[in-house]
Amino acid sequence: MDNHFTIGLDFGTNSVRALIVNVANGQEYGSFIYNYARGDAGVVLDRSDANLARQHPQDYLRGIEITIDQALEQAATKNGFSRKNVIGIGVDTTGSTPLPVNAAGTALALTPEFQDDPNAMAWLWKDHTAHAEAEEITAAAARMRPQYLAKCGGRYSSEWFWAKVLRASRVAPKVFDAAHTWVEIADWIPAVLAGKTAPAALRRGVCAAGHKAMYNPQWGGFPDDQFLAALDPRLGRVRQSLGDKCYSIAESAGGLSAEWAAKLNLPEGIPVAVGAFDAHLGAVGAGVGPGTLVKIMGTSTCDITVSPLDSSLADVPGLCGIVPESVLPGDFGLEAGQSAVGDIFNWFVNIIKPGGDEQATHANLTAAAEKLQPGESGLLSLDWHNGNRTVLVDQRLTGLIVGLTLTSTPAEIYRALIEATAFGARVIMERFEEFGVKVQRVVNCGGIAARSPMAMQIYADVMNRPLALSRSTQTCALGSAVAAAVVAGKSRGGHESFPSAVKAMTALQDKVFTPQPAAAQVYERLYRLYRNLHDAFGVRDSKQDLYPVMKELLDIRDRVRAK
Amino acid sequence: MDNHFTIGLDFGTNSVRALIVNVANGQEYGSFIYNYARGDAGVVLDRSDANLARQHPQDYLRGIEITIDQALEQAATKNGFSRKNVIGIGVDTTGSTPLPVNAAGTALALTPEFQDDPNAMAWLWKDHTAHAEAEEITAAAARMRPQYLAKCGGRYSSEWFWAKVLRASRVAPKVFDAAHTWVEIADWIPAVLAGKTAPAALRRGVCAAGHKAMYNPQWGGFPDDQFLAALDPRLGRVRQSLGDKCYSIAESAGGLSAEWAAKLNLPEGIPVAVGAFDAHLGAVGAGVGPGTLVKIMGTSTCDITVSPLDSSLADVPGLCGIVPESVLPGDFGLEAGQSAVGDIFNWFVNIIKPGGDEQATHANLTAAAEKLQPGESGLLSLDWHNGNRTVLVDQRLTGLIVGLTLTSTPAEIYRALIEATAFGARVIMERFEEFGVKVQRVVNCGGIAARSPMAMQIYADVMNRPLALSRSTQTCALGSAVAAAVVAGKSRGGHESFPSAVKAMTALQDKVFTPQPAAAQVYERLYRLYRNLHDAFGVRDSKQDLYPVMKELLDIRDRVRAK
Repeated sequence: MDNHFTIGLDFGTNSVRALIVNVANGQEYGSFIYNYARGDAGVVLDRSDANLARQHPQDYLRGIEITIDQALEQAATKNGFSRKNVIGIGVDTTGSTPLPVNAAGTALALTPEFQDDPNAMAWLWKDHTAHAEAEEITAAAARMRPQYLAKCGGRYSSEWFWAKVLRASRVAPKVFDAAHTWVEIADWIPAVLAGKTAPAALRRGVCAAGHKAMYNPQWGGFPDDQFLAALDPRLGRVRQSLGDKCYSIAESAGGLSAEWAAKLNLPEGIPVAVGAFDAHLGAVGAGVGPGTLVKIMGTSTCDITVSPLDSSLADVPGLCGIVPESVLPGDFGLEAGQSAVGDIFNWFVNIIKPGGDEQATHANLTAAAEKLQPGESGLLSLDWHNGNRTVLVDQRLTGLIVGLTLTSTPAEIYRALIEATAFGARVIMERFEEFGVKVQRVVNCGGIAARSPMAMQIYADVMNRPLALSRSTQTCALGSAVAAAVVAGKSRGGHESFPSAVKAMTALQDKVFTPQPAAAQVYERLYRLYRNLHDAFGVRDSKQDLYPVMKELLDIRDRVRAK
Repeated sequence: MDNHFTIGLDFGTNSVRALIVNVANGQEYGSFIYNYARGDAGVVLDRSDANLARQHPQDYLRGIEITIDQALEQAATKNGFSRKNVIGIGVDTTGSTPLPVNAAGTALALTPEFQDDPNAMAWLWKDHTAHAEAEEITAAAARMRPQYLAKCGGRYSSEWFWAKVLRASRVAPKVFDAAHTWVEIADWIPAVLAGKTAPAALRRGVCAAGHKAMYNPQWGGFPDDQFLAALDPRLGRVRQSLGDKCYSIAESAGGLSAEWAAKLNLPEGIPVAVGAFDAHLGAVGAGVGPGTLVKIMGTSTCDITVSPLDSSLADVPGLCGIVPESVLPGDFGLEAGQSAVGDIFNWFVNIIKPGGDEQATHANLTAAAEKLQPGESGLLSLDWHNGNRTVLVDQRLTGLIVGLTLTSTPAEIYRALIEATAFGARVIMERFEEFGVKVQRVVNCGGIAARSPMAMQIYADVMNRPLALSRSTQTCALGSAVAAAVVAGKSRGGHESFPSAVKAMTALQDKVFTPQPAAAQVYERLYRLYRNLHDAFGVRDSKQDLYPVMKELLDIRDRVRAK
């Protein structure tokens, strides 16, 4: 019997990866990473506005070609591989990362007029220029449509679709007027591969729409015109362009176009799965299911779990979203996350760079931090260097470190930063459980889980439960490949359903990190202190004088920089 | 007419300096620094106890010889200098830095039995091992002798004499039993030079006794036996050894002994002034007087002013001390201070070392930080890396930084640390003024004032008043030389009083740092936020959850390290 293969394409913050997987057993035959060429490691920044983060769609197109080509070359050296047995492609991306496109579905930044305009590029998930608009949307929804907020944690985020579109309408009128519509790159890239970027043909995924654009079948799809008009009458046109129906990843965005089939030397017409966010397909690649919480740890972290559609599920305050079928067909998808995790460690290594280039490596700092006992440094940090996504849903928060003395070392600070992210992870887990979403097992995946056993042990000790690791270190791309296998279907050599595809293609490692009681006890005390800081700086409460501190500092900074 | 000269000896945390000064005009003829040989830059540390900091008296003795010898050699190359025209020696030291001595006045650490025992060395001012004992003394005084506390800011500090002696009685019984008495090095060193270390001959200065050992003529000298017995009955013996009378710096500790005269090749019998703390004599060297606040900025900072003895002066909560004649005869001396200033900047440069050896210099970080506008970084820091001396009088506080983002740079943090110390300085100035001690002019001296115009401008902007600089960069040693000139007296070629000596021997620089209104306005906002953090973490208040955070972190740290 022939082997059959699918391709998972995973678009991250700094790079895109292609992975070629045997659908029978999940074996990875080829893989290649392309680092985006533009900006600062793929991210276009603006020194005068620390909130701005954009990406150029040209980097995405170039990434598709190079990574698939090179991964196929690699696969071709393995026994049993043949290009003609590639039966589907799946796509995951960062998000909410909306891209303005013209009436033909061409990204504005790919047209000569707008090619160097950051406002015409993709507004990357971590772009926070729309914080004022997010507040406005939250206020309007609280007044007019509380049900919209209930499904996204009680606050609309500056990272999300409508905040960014509303912001563009104000600061980039030329782009806004030229844009026929705005498309999440999770939807745009499958449409590109299928040659279906034209608005009438494009299929939007329920994942991006539901978690970031207030789409929910419960209220008939995207938000209604009256609500949007209260924000800005011109949003009605955008609403119109989105259509009424969104699709799960069990469905096809279209067959691979002749043009791309030729470019990639792959069979024309093989299905391209509807796209979804990296964390959601990462959860699929790590074996998510009811009772399993998957943590995808990278530059930021996503926490994903699911709950059967027929279960009675409370709204969970502070969660990024509760969306029917946003992860797996048949289940609610629940998403939480931390706005920065690896990014914080990288900041310390690459920007603070303690001791200089040679000393300031993750390996050196980890080696020194590993020798420290929990609590030994006397340091405690908040992991809000890029805001707080869950449970505070507030980008206008910042990092903090307390306990500094004249002998505090870089390794102590490095460890405190890791511990801070673990405390943040525990806040999220506790919030799920408080609202009845049981967490029976935790599976970690992503780069940090693979590279830092110390971080994993700290997480196990802080969360005080065993942590498993996914076998693949590329679960997002693997999840995309799983989706491709389901969309291809059993008749073409794929799978009939997600449960069978997940069972065949994903697995856990043997190694499990088990909490150490002595460490867990110290972290219990430190966690209570973390919660004190968390609530004092993060929760609006007239008893406290500290809630305004981070916000005023950002306000002062922004005024000074704007001068 | 012959020139006449005095020698100022200034014992700092890491080194000792000798300065040879012409008493007619303050001109500096010779100067030499000796870096202590022992421990870490002169400070004996203990990795298992971050609170411990000791100094070996052998380093002091060696320092006297080398620095005076070399400074005299240097002076001898100048016109008009002659060793026979040296008319007196003055001494200032760190404090409270008590040293256990035997019945002959010999430091225990200079005897074979105790030579390597840190508990037998000088307990350096920044040793905080006695924090529990300080709390105990504060509690006992609050109960039994509130007047003792009123003159030292309401809390007895772990840096001070009785806390350290009580601590020694508990953790170092052999040292405690072998010690006939404990002597501040400010008193011990003049006694060494005069050959009068024997307890009956030794003259203790009112500066150390009054600010650190609860000495006050108002209640008959040192604390009474009943109070001390409540702490530990064995303290009665120590109390007995201290005598009842202390002396101001206008008096002589004795004439230079034959032994030291020979060793230093100086006239035998020239007067050695009673010793005082570096900051106090630094204030004298900077021209202190009623209405003038002198800030001696170095590794830590002292703020000194005086108020006439006949003025009605309220007790000022949080001040390190209000002591009759502790600075100048005829005035109350008022002392405040910050536990770490330059030490914090040095910590960032030497321990965090951002960017490595070549990049992490004060010069480079200053050059980059100078380009930043006030408020531009969005960062705010607390300057408590070594506790808070004034106004909280609490060593169990730690440093904090808030506002960190993924783009925060080392230069931004460096500037935030400098700003934090300026905010701390403003808290002190405001406390003086709140209680009726007017500050008409501020004079800065010490290493930082000399080396960092950026820091001085930040201080001027934050405190929102003009800052003058002392002409000498060695005001502590200069103040000691001034005292020596007064003790020598007019008949021997010195001065008849402090006002005439100060007028002749000290001066200000022409350069004055003037507040910039735009910067002062931003700092006004930042200072309010600083006060929010200051009060939330530093003031016990049932409304706030944050007061215990720093203390619990230190408690957890100390327990883990003790294991």
